[in-house]
Amino acid sequence: MSYRHDVRLAGEGGQGVVTGGLVLAEAAAVYEGKNVVMTQTYAPQQRGGSARAEIIVSDAEIDYPKVLEADVLLALNQEAFDRYHHQVKRNGVIIVESAHVGGEYSGHIKVLKVPLEEVSCHVAGTSQSANFVALGVVSEISDIVSASALRAALRARLPQQVRQMNLKALNAGVLLGRNMKRT
Amino acid sequence: MSYRHDVRLAGEGGQGVVTGGLVLAEAAAVYEGKNVVMTQTYAPQQRGGSARAEIIVSDAEIDYPKVLEADVLLALNQEAFDRYHHQVKRNGVIIVESAHVGGEYSGHIKVLKVPLEEVSCHVAGTSQSANFVALGVVSEISDIVSASALRAALRARLPQQVRQMNLKALNAGVLLGRNMKRT
Repeated sequence: MSYRHDVRLAGEGGQGVVTGGLVLAEAAAVYEGKNVVMTQTYAPQQRGGSARAEIIVSDAEIDYPKVLEADVLLALNQEAFDRYHHQVKRNGVIIVESAHVGGEYSGHIKVLKVPLEEVSCHVAGTSQSANFVALGVVSEISDIVSASALRAALRARLPQQVRQMNLKALNAGVLLGRNMKRT
Repeated sequence: MSYRHDVRLAGEGGQGVVTGGLVLAEAAAVYEGKNVVMTQTYAPQQRGGSARAEIIVSDAEIDYPKVLEADVLLALNQEAFDRYHHQVKRNGVIIVESAHVGGEYSGHIKVLKVPLEEVSCHVAGTSQSANFVALGVVSEISDIVSASALRAALRARLPQQVRQMNLKALNAGVLLGRNMKRT
């Protein structure tokens, strides 16, 4: 029986949605031999505008390349949450940046509120690696991709000067995710 | 009247199809304010396997995010040409890597045979920037994106150590494309 995982990453331009998606896609494709289709959508005024990346990972050919309901949704801002939280599978997970997404959520889907930017600041000295904290969490709370494949793809895809900070953020996310599984 | 340009870049893993596509997508979106959707498909065994990137650029919202017939097809190897040359608009253009794509083409579509890798070696000291030679040609022979937006996106997206060689390759492609328009 073949499987298919659908991931949607959403936020605003500059939050690293596309870069994070690329690393996830290449981790699964190049380092774990999966079929992967990634689609990114750029709205005008990208800087500050909305950004979205969708990644489908499968061990079989991917017939339908669009994400309808996600297994994992990462919502980096309120708009992303409001727009996409209805399009998540019943046994799926929503990871939200707790600094930017507020309010109570009364649905049936599991929502993990994580201070991604704060963790990123703490371990990497910048909030800009919040996307990689999120990827670390994803690797632990789901079966989509392993942390070691993410590390390999990160090293291959990103320039040397930002590699270390993003690896630290990724590793912090892995620890966070591991703790979440236990609780 | 709104317009829509469809571009398909195809080759094998390691030829920079995804990186080239990203720079094209971000040039049009971030630096020219267009709506852009990019889809990349990774087949298993990416290194050596086939790689494809599709980019749609429009001044209106993009309803249908798949490329059926391309305005521009870049075929970096024979398999890419054989597979996709039938899916090009009648007034479209196919750019092929002349070192890897042989045979005569009897169709009605304009085919530009360019020694992309040879030009890349000559100006950048490596064949790895052939994808950026191709983007330079695209910027001149079509109205999809300007060379200056490509340069800006290249600087923003690529690590410093490969920026110069790819800029040289891009500029060489622009000159090539300009010559092709004249002949």
